[in-house]
Amino acid sequence: MTITRILGLDPGLASLGFGAISVAVQSRPPAITLIDFGIIQTPARTEMGSRLQTIYDDLHSLLDEIQPNLVAIEQLFFYKMGNTIPVAQARGVILLVIAQHQIPWVEFTPAQIKQAVAGYGNAQKPDVQAAVARELGLDRIPRPDDAADALAIALTAWLQLSC
Amino acid sequence: MTITRILGLDPGLASLGFGAISVAVQSRPPAITLIDFGIIQTPARTEMGSRLQTIYDDLHSLLDEIQPNLVAIEQLFFYKMGNTIPVAQARGVILLVIAQHQIPWVEFTPAQIKQAVAGYGNAQKPDVQAAVARELGLDRIPRPDDAADALAIALTAWLQLSC
Repeated sequence: MTITRILGLDPGLASLGFGAISVAVQSRPPAITLIDFGIIQTPARTEMGSRLQTIYDDLHSLLDEIQPNLVAIEQLFFYKMGNTIPVAQARGVILLVIAQHQIPWVEFTPAQIKQAVAGYGNAQKPDVQAAVARELGLDRIPRPDDAADALAIALTAWLQLSC
Repeated sequence: MTITRILGLDPGLASLGFGAISVAVQSRPPAITLIDFGIIQTPARTEMGSRLQTIYDDLHSLLDEIQPNLVAIEQLFFYKMGNTIPVAQARGVILLVIAQHQIPWVEFTPAQIKQAVAGYGNAQKPDVQAAVARELGLDRIPRPDDAADALAIALTAWLQLSC
């Protein structure tokens, strides 16, 4: 049986959300299992280089542990003005680490994620989170929000690619 | 005699400019020598992760070779809209590599660089480039532009820090 392990990442500098799922592709319907979720945090008021180093080290460890076949990451836009450059700098380090592990990756816009998981592109966050919990058979919403968002991104990769 | 080796970096994804100078601090006046300048290039239409990996590898090699005591890098703003996110992603990898070498770094705005090198904050590019050549005793403008800009950033660090 082919097992696909998908790691979703919600890029951030202070908090980088991750959520990993495993999909048994050949079972009918495909069996989706939660592997792990959480956040990689870097402390505010710490020098930027050292925060990027933390993301680099922790994400390398996470990829070693999860061994995903595919990484799915949210695309970045300008809508959070003050925040965009630091988040993009963190995202550069994230894409570097993925390249160093030679794992293929895909990216999705927020609207694509909402559409895929909740069924409509302007879904609100609680709807997306409820859909994530339902899809993964969880009896509560994964916390914190960045981890739930990362699981939504992983599910999007699965739903998009399996359609 | 204390020698300070300063590496200036003009962050970019397609072309990352670098310019290194050496300053013999105790000579009167301080003797500024050009060490090296150039660009690290990554090909367009190549996958982003692989471009970031090239920057990571080449910048590590450059730091090993130059052995700077200080890195000076241009601050990033929103003014080049379409370009800002890719450049910020590259800049994240650049700051990571500097942190991995444990080299202190400083950043300057474009206006600070123009002010320091050409004497006024709204100087045009040819004025800044001419000032760079004059300050380093070169008989021609360093090329390409990104390398000349990086030398201007290195000179700014020296002029700012020595005042």
